[in-house]
This record gives sequence, C-alpha cells and structure tokens, in this order.
Amino acid sequence: MKVAIDAMGGDFAPQENVLGAIEALKEYKDKNLEIILVGNKDQILEFLPQDYSDTLNIKIHNTTEVIEMDDHPAAAVREKKDSSLVVAARLVKDGLCDSFVSAGSTGAAVAASLLILGRIKNIERATIATPIPNPAGTTLLLDSGANVDSKPKHLLQSAIMGSIYAEHILKISNPRIGLLNIGEEESKGNKQALETLPLLKNLDRNKFNFIGNVEGRDITNGSVDVVVCDGFVGNVVLKFGEGLAYTILQILREALETGSILTKIATFFLLPAMRSLKKKFDYAEFGGAPLLGVNGGCIICHGSSKAKAIKNAIRVAAEFKENDVLNNISKSIAAEEKKEI
Amino acid sequence: MKVAIDAMGGDFAPQENVLGAIEALKEYKDKNLEIILVGNKDQILEFLPQDYSDTLNIKIHNTTEVIEMDDHPAAAVREKKDSSLVVAARLVKDGLCDSFVSAGSTGAAVAASLLILGRIKNIERATIATPIPNPAGTTLLLDSGANVDSKPKHLLQSAIMGSIYAEHILKISNPRIGLLNIGEEESKGNKQALETLPLLKNLDRNKFNFIGNVEGRDITNGSVDVVVCDGFVGNVVLKFGEGLAYTILQILREALETGSILTKIATFFLLPAMRSLKKKFDYAEFGGAPLLGVNGGCIICHGSSKAKAIKNAIRVAAEFKENDVLNNISKSIAAEEKKEI
Repeated sequence: MKVAIDAMGGDFAPQENVLGAIEALKEYKDKNLEIILVGNKDQILEFLPQDYSDTLNIKIHNTTEVIEMDDHPAAAVREKKDSSLVVAARLVKDGLCDSFVSAGSTGAAVAASLLILGRIKNIERATIATPIPNPAGTTLLLDSGANVDSKPKHLLQSAIMGSIYAEHILKISNPRIGLLNIGEEESKGNKQALETLPLLKNLDRNKFNFIGNVEGRDITNGSVDVVVCDGFVGNVVLKFGEGLAYTILQILREALETGSILTKIATFFLLPAMRSLKKKFDYAEFGGAPLLGVNGGCIICHGSSKAKAIKNAIRVAAEFKENDVLNNISKSIAAEEKKEI
Repeated sequence: MKVAIDAMGGDFAPQENVLGAIEALKEYKDKNLEIILVGNKDQILEFLPQDYSDTLNIKIHNTTEVIEMDDHPAAAVREKKDSSLVVAARLVKDGLCDSFVSAGSTGAAVAASLLILGRIKNIERATIATPIPNPAGTTLLLDSGANVDSKPKHLLQSAIMGSIYAEHILKISNPRIGLLNIGEEESKGNKQALETLPLLKNLDRNKFNFIGNVEGRDITNGSVDVVVCDGFVGNVVLKFGEGLAYTILQILREALETGSILTKIATFFLLPAMRSLKKKFDYAEFGGAPLLGVNGGCIICHGSSKAKAIKNAIRVAAEFKENDVLNNISKSIAAEEKKEI
C-alpha cells in the first residue's frame, strides 16, 4: 500500500504531514504501508528522525514548487509541474503510488486529479464525499462542492459511488441512500430533484438501497447513510454545519465562562462531556474526504489538519486500495451504463 | 391593529393559539391590538375566561372546516372555503384585519395568501423569510421554502423585501445583504448565483447594503443580516440546522446523563448555560416567519408553536402594519421595476 502525501499542503505543512505519516506507520503496521512524502526535502527532513530510512518505510520525493491557496487551481496545476501536489498526483498516475493525500487547496487537488488521473470510464463528474457524524455513526454527503448545476445522471453516479465507498470504507452494510430534498413526498423538489428521483428508484435493489427523498434534518439524525445532492447545496450545508457547530460551542463556552463560580466549577466536571461532543464533530477523526470518480485514490483533508487527521487520511487512502474501491466503482458504473443502453 | 389568528392551526390548537392571543393582549397594551380568533367557536371558548368579551379585545369568528396537514394545499384552500385558515386570510383581504397568523400547514398558508391576498404589484414570487439566531442578534434567511428554481429576478426581489423587513421589524439599521454562495469570489457559484450577483450589485447603495457573496458559515456568525437564496437551498439549510442543533444538544445531554456523579452534579450548575443556549435557538422567541410579497401580513409559525410563539407572532403581525412594511416593499419594488425600464 503506497501512499503519496502532498507534504507542503495545509496550514501546518510540512510538520503535521510528516508527523501524521510517522504516526500512520506506527499505528497501521498491518497495512504494509509505504509513504512517499512529496515536497521540499530540507524542510521535510527537519521533522524526521535522523535514522528514518532505517526505521520507517518513508521515502522523500523532492519538489521545488508549491501551489498556494489563492492560485487559480487549474492554471496552477498546469503551470507548477514540480509542485508537491502535482507530483503526488503523478506518482499515482504512473502507478508508483495507489493514492495521494493533500491538505492543500481543495480546488487544486480536484483539478490535479481530473487533469492527471482522469475520470473513471463513463463517470461524467467526480464528486467530493464528506463524512458527517451522527449520533449512531457516520453519514456520507456528496457532492460537497466539486460540481454545481449537476445533471440527474451525475447525482445517480454519486449515489453509486457513495454507496460503494460507504460500504467498503465506512463499513456500513447495505448503506441507505437518500436524495436530499425539501420534503419526503415524491412530488416535492426542484427540477433537478424531480428528474433524479426516478433514476435512483431504478437502481438495482440487490446492490443499492435507495430509500427515497430525505430532508436537511436527516443528514445528522442517523436515518440515512449516503446523502446525494448537488455540489452547491452540499457545500452550503457543509459550511453552514461547521459554522453552526462552532457557534453553539462558542455560546455554551461563553455562558460557562461568564457564569457564577459554581458554573465555573461545573465546567471542570463538564469537560469530559464537552470533549465527547467535540470528538463527535472532530473532522480529524474522519480521515478526510475522498474525491470519487477519478482513476486513483485522492483524499482531501481540511486545511487545518494536524497529524491525527493526516494519519487517518492515510488509513483511508490505504483502505481505498485494500478494498479495491476503484474497481468496484468502475464495475458498478459500467453496469449502470449498460442498463441505459 | 387587527390580527386574525388561524385558531385551528398547529399541533396544539386551539389551546395554545388562544392562550397566545390572551398573552399578547396583556403584554402589548401599547399596540392597541384587536384579535379575531378564527375557528371552532365551542372549542375556542373552552380556553377563554367566561367574561372575555368584557375584559379582552378578542372576537371569535366561527368556522366549520379545518385544513389538515396532509391536505393538498392549493386544493384545500379552494375547496374548504369555511376553514379557519381561509377565513383568516379573507378577513385580511376584506380589510377587516391587517395580518393573519397561522401555525398550520405552511403550504396551505402560502396557497391561501397567494390565492386570496394576491401578490404585491410587480412581485413575481412571494418568499418565506426565516429569522435565524446568531451570537450578535438575528439573521434573516429567505427564501426558506416557498419557491424552487428561482430566477435571478426573484432573488433580487427577495433581497429588497428581506432588507425592508429586517430594517423595520428586526430593527437592524442598514441591513447587510448577502447572496448565499459557495465562495466569496465573484466567479464562484452555480448559474443562478452567477446571474443574480450583478443584479444585486446594481441595487441603489443609498437604500440597500449589498455586501456580496456569503457562505454557509456566515448564516450564523453575525457577519450578514439578510441572506438571499433559492427556496430549495434555504429549506435544506433550515431543516439541517434544526436537526443539527437538536443532535448537538442530545449528544451533550446524553454525555451528561451517563456521566459520573460529579458530572451529574455539574449538570445542575450547568442548567443556566443550557437554558441560555436553548433560548438562543428557541424559535418561539422569534415570532414566526413572514411570507413577504403578498398584499397583507401573513406570519407563519412552526407547527409545534406554543402560546409564547403565537404571542410573538402576533407582535410581529402588529409591527408589520405599524411600520407600514407592505407599502415600503411596494414602493421599493416599483422603483426597482422603473430602473429596468
């Protein structure tokens, strides 16, 4: 299992990328991992033990350029051929790695994947699938921002890819797939939802468990495992959720801090509960969001990812290959195409 | 200020509607309120004091039908001519009341308003504007579900109506208007957002304070006062927010309940903070969501509204008239039309 890391990507690069790689190797001994750290060799070496080449299955692939957060994604991918992101994607393209992980610019990671890895045959749009916690486990939301103005077929393909990912990586058996909508009734929705519904209802029930329309509140209540939507709605919902969770915790913290001395004592005892809550919504636990539909594993991490998030993303990248997610997606998408013919 | 209440609407009708009316009369003495409770007279009388006609400025308008939650909205409005909702709307149409309040089916309230009150001249789509709490105050989100597949002009009109409402009812001076999008940059967004942006940028800066694209996280962080969006996105976001807030509180409560004895003691001291949080997100405080763009005040309340929510909705209904919101909207929309000619 060979995973390339865009070592220069993210707010805490390359330190947290390197530390995450080291942790992954320690923790996932059974995965037979080899990690290629792609980036500025000198900077990377600062965070590796001197004897790393004897003790860790890590290699460094030196690069001289970096794609910045405000670079135009596609242009940067084309121009900065020796950037850590582009080279990491190339390693996957050339078969030297199975997947790559990046905490850098999401737009650039998507552009690099599309331009360098290319889309799986018959896939019209690759989509970003974001795992969202719910009290009972995890719900996968896709597309969370790669595409807008999606056609019904794109949503259908998202459903297929999301279900396969949920099954193999999130270990959810027979994942319940829902179409994000404004009401449960089949008559509800905009043009996009109304045209997509029949396609999803037509999925092979032996392979895909489509449960119908789901509403916004179902995303976090554990009643659905894979939520299919257009990237515009998905992205707004995701960012709204991040903002809301943050706001609620802020309000709670403020109320505790400005409270009486008894309330302050209570905070001390409350810490375990607060930690449990934070953990539930800690994206670092979830190992990033995969870009589904390209020829290779691409795991996109939040810019503020620290070592733990990178470690988990590496685990996901390895499992992506272990469980042959790409081939599974490929076959199912091909089977769906045959249906239409 | 004459307000009609759909007394049979909502999960706790008619009790909470009647109690809300009584509380409104007690609390808002300065508003010179007269309330018409529209519904089954016998059921309503159960919750009024015997001497109500001497002590309260309440009248009862008897009706014999009720629109149920699962009735087809437009059909029900046309067929059940003696339903509490339809008659309440008629009272406004006939000038006997200024606004009506309903906690019944949102779809039916919208249908009744459109069919009976009709749209303000030049308004193409009426929109539901939902107030959402933020740490610094309130943000208005519209459209939160009346229309899908909105055209850019509909969003422009939402911006105008929302700003006027925010100014007069939410008492926000020079409300900051944002277009809900997936990024701040002007190049971001789907077709609908890209075509709407120039229209909003063209708003008269002396009258409307358009600040540009805003993202999902800005809805609750206090950085924008009026968020303009299509009803599909708005509705998904709203329901997602309700679900998420509920989920977070559930997780926190569970962690507290299953914790050690010290944690349980902490709960006792934490209660004020929890209450403060709940209050922040208590829709009952906000007085319902107005339907903007129709010829008359229509305030839609959550189905689970109790007396406090109804009371606040009555206040909003009164302020709607007091501040001449309808005429303000009318004039601004007409001025915008002239611009286009």
